[in-house]
Formats: sequence, structure tokens, C-alpha cells
Amino acid sequence: MPQEKMSIVVFSGDLDRVMAAFIIATTAAAMGLEVNMFFTFWGLNVLRKKKLTAGKKVLQKLMNALNRGGAGRLGLSKFNMLGLGPAVMKIMMKQSRLPSIPEFVTTAKKLGVKFTACTTTFSFMGFKKDDFIDGVDAYAGAATFLGDALDSRVSYFI
Amino acid sequence: MPQEKMSIVVFSGDLDRVMAAFIIATTAAAMGLEVNMFFTFWGLNVLRKKKLTAGKKVLQKLMNALNRGGAGRLGLSKFNMLGLGPAVMKIMMKQSRLPSIPEFVTTAKKLGVKFTACTTTFSFMGFKKDDFIDGVDAYAGAATFLGDALDSRVSYFI
Amino acid sequence: MPQEKMSIVVFSGDLDRVMAAFIIATTAAAMGLEVNMFFTFWGLNVLRKKKLTAGKKVLQKLMNALNRGGAGRLGLSKFNMLGLGPAVMKIMMKQSRLPSIPEFVTTAKKLGVKFTACTTTFSFMGFKKDDFIDGVDAYAGAATFLGDALDSRVSYFI
Repeated sequence: MPQEKMSIVVFSGDLDRVMAAFIIATTAAAMGLEVNMFFTFWGLNVLRKKKLTAGKKVLQKLMNALNRGGAGRLGLSKFNMLGLGPAVMKIMMKQSRLPSIPEFVTTAKKLGVKFTACTTTFSFMGFKKDDFIDGVDAYAGAATFLGDALDSRVSYFI
Repeated sequence: MPQEKMSIVVFSGDLDRVMAAFIIATTAAAMGLEVNMFFTFWGLNVLRKKKLTAGKKVLQKLMNALNRGGAGRLGLSKFNMLGLGPAVMKIMMKQSRLPSIPEFVTTAKKLGVKFTACTTTFSFMGFKKDDFIDGVDAYAGAATFLGDALDSRVSYFI
Repeated sequence: MPQEKMSIVVFSGDLDRVMAAFIIATTAAAMGLEVNMFFTFWGLNVLRKKKLTAGKKVLQKLMNALNRGGAGRLGLSKFNMLGLGPAVMKIMMKQSRLPSIPEFVTTAKKLGVKFTACTTTFSFMGFKKDDFIDGVDAYAGAATFLGDALDSRVSYFI
């Protein structure tokens, strides 16, 4: 039997939604599925280094200043409260022995989860390949992702 | 022909998104599908009783104070306006003869929709089994849910 | 081989999420898939004309006043900043030669993407058929959509 596939569009950059995406992805990979995570829009923040090679355009610089990246600095979809909510949630994750997002990234890579950064939106957001962490397996657009999705047993948009 | 399956991850606790999840779930169940709703993160609020056996940890108590549960008390993803938006929407639902969320819960149970509460996140949020309504069929983690999802004809993340 | 199908529930009316839905839908249609977009709740705003035949009920009028429709006037899920965020994003979309949402609507129609407006929620929101643009192919409820979804290779809730 060929290996079953799962694909996830990680559109959101909210800590809680990204955590849900990684719980699903790492569980599926541990169960033997081939998992492809496609990071697009705010989800690209998970794959960004903290220091950016800033986009050349003023508006992209503005958006980058607001939209601070890095897997350790994501906000919450609810109760964000200027960063207090995510701080509380991170302590709760630690107390419950849940991995942090940077730890989930490492675990996912160890389990062979494939990371694709969406080229359509990363150029639009003013990011460059140098802005991303080493774990990115591919830079590709929606057509490549859809090829994977059509082959998948389950596919989510998160 | 074996019965087709549908599975839904109810991640959101917003009134409008939860309503969409229940419209899909009850319609699918009425069409003869076997439907499994997996409540996780904020979606767990749908299954919570109003009175909580508070979590032992201070931070979980704080999060519980903010994150008021109960299917009749969900907020909106937009225009929440300190609770005015949900109040308006509830009156509109009544005027359009749409069921309320507690009514949707009852209908879903009558139609045989299976409710699973996510154990990974309920302990993390500081909930206990006593905090949940009777209609919960199972307490399980992501691996159990993914088993259902892989068997499903359609699976959504809401 | 019969034509593969894709279906998308467009629940959100946020500019960024709607843009993601259209990138997926138009890419899939260009790859030869039969694509059905089912607009419901806030997503109905994409299909609305600017001038509304207002709902008869006061609460629906209030909700319509807040919930301004039209594909050119959607807000952002993050950094909305009273409309500044969407304005910045629209300029960035233009600079990156990404189509605007009204252009995506036109392209989707040219590629044969089918638009369905959800009747369960449009009457509930106080909309009428006259409020919608010409490109709507069908007015139907959740059961019709689920028929399409069960037939689809991939189905998303956005």
C-alpha cells in the first residue's frame, strides 16, 4: 500500500491556530503519513528568522514592522491583549509539557514533515529567501501545493 | 455501500463559526452520513457547562475567567462589540427560525452526531471531564481524530 | 477520466482569507478542475453589490450598516486598523501585480468557477437576490453544497 498523504495550508500566523496545525501534522507524521505543510500569508511568519532583510518598498517595510515574524513571537487569535495572552499561553503550554512552536518546528522536521513556503505571497509580503529558516524544503506556488493536495487523503486550511 | 463519513475539527469558539459547523454537521447527518465533531481549543467551550470546576493553576483560572464557556455564551468572530453583536445575531437567528447553538447541540445528538473532546487541549486549558455536558461521546487526542479523518469522505477545520 | 472536483466554503469575508480562497480556486480551475465556491455568512459580502435593498427588520438593517458588502470593500483578519491595513494591502497587491478581489471574481468566472450563494444564511443576514452580482450561478443550502463536497477530491472551509 502506498504511503497515505496529508496536506495542510497554514494561512494563519496565530499562535493557537499554528499550534493546532503542528499537533495535527506531527501526529499524522508519527502515524506514518507523508505530511506537507504549505505556509502562506501570515503563516509564513512561522518560517521567518527574527532579523529580516527588509523589503525595498516602504509599504512592505511598514507591513513587516507590524507583522513581526519568527516562530517564537506569534500572537493569539483571541485574548491577544498586547502580547499578554500569548505569554500566558506559552507558560500554560510549558506547564502542560506541550512543546513551544519552535520545538514543534524541530519535531516536525525530525518526523520528516515537508515545509513549503508559498512564493506567491512571500514576494507580495516583501520577504526574501534569506528571511527564512533552514528547514524550508521548497519554495513553490499554489499549483504545486494543489498537486500535493489532490494526492492527499486529508487536506486542511488552517 | 458502507456509510460515508464526515469529520469536523471545531477549533473556533466563535458563535458564527460554530453555527456554520453545526449547519454542516446536522445537514450531513440528516443526509445519512456518519458525522464526527472533534472539539479542541476554543471549540471546547461549546461542550462546557457554565459552572466550572476551576483549574488548579492560577494562569488556567485567569484564562477560564476570560474564556467563558457554555454553548449559549459564545462570541462572534466579527463585530463582537462587548457582546452586543452576539445578542443581535441571536435575535436574528430566532427571527429567521434558525436554531440557537444549544438547540443545534440537541439536534446534532438526536441525529447521531458524535462529539469528541480533545484531551490534548482540555487538560492544557485547565478543564476537567466534570466541566463538560453529557453529550460528549469520547475523550481522545489527535491520533484518534486523525483515524476518523482518514476514513472520512470530507473533513473540515473550522 | 472524469473531471476532478474541488469545493470551497467561503465563510470569511476578510480580504486576506478571500484572496487565499480565490488564489486556490483560480489555480485549480486553470489546472482543469471543476471548482465550486460556496459563499456563506461574511463570505456573502464578496457577491454583494454596493447598494443594498435593505432588509425589512431593524436588526438586519443595523447588521447591514456594520457589515458593508462589495468585493472591493473587504477588511483584513489582522491589522485592519480602521481600513488602513486593507488599503496598504491593496497597494501591495497592485505593486506585486496580484489581482484585486473584483479582478479575481472576473477571472474565476472566465475560468468557469461556479459561485453558489448560501440561502440559509443570506435570508438570515437580511439579503435578497437583488443584492447579489450577476455571476452567482446558484442559490442553494447546505445540502446542495454537501452533495458537491462529497464528490470533491479536495474541500476547504476558509
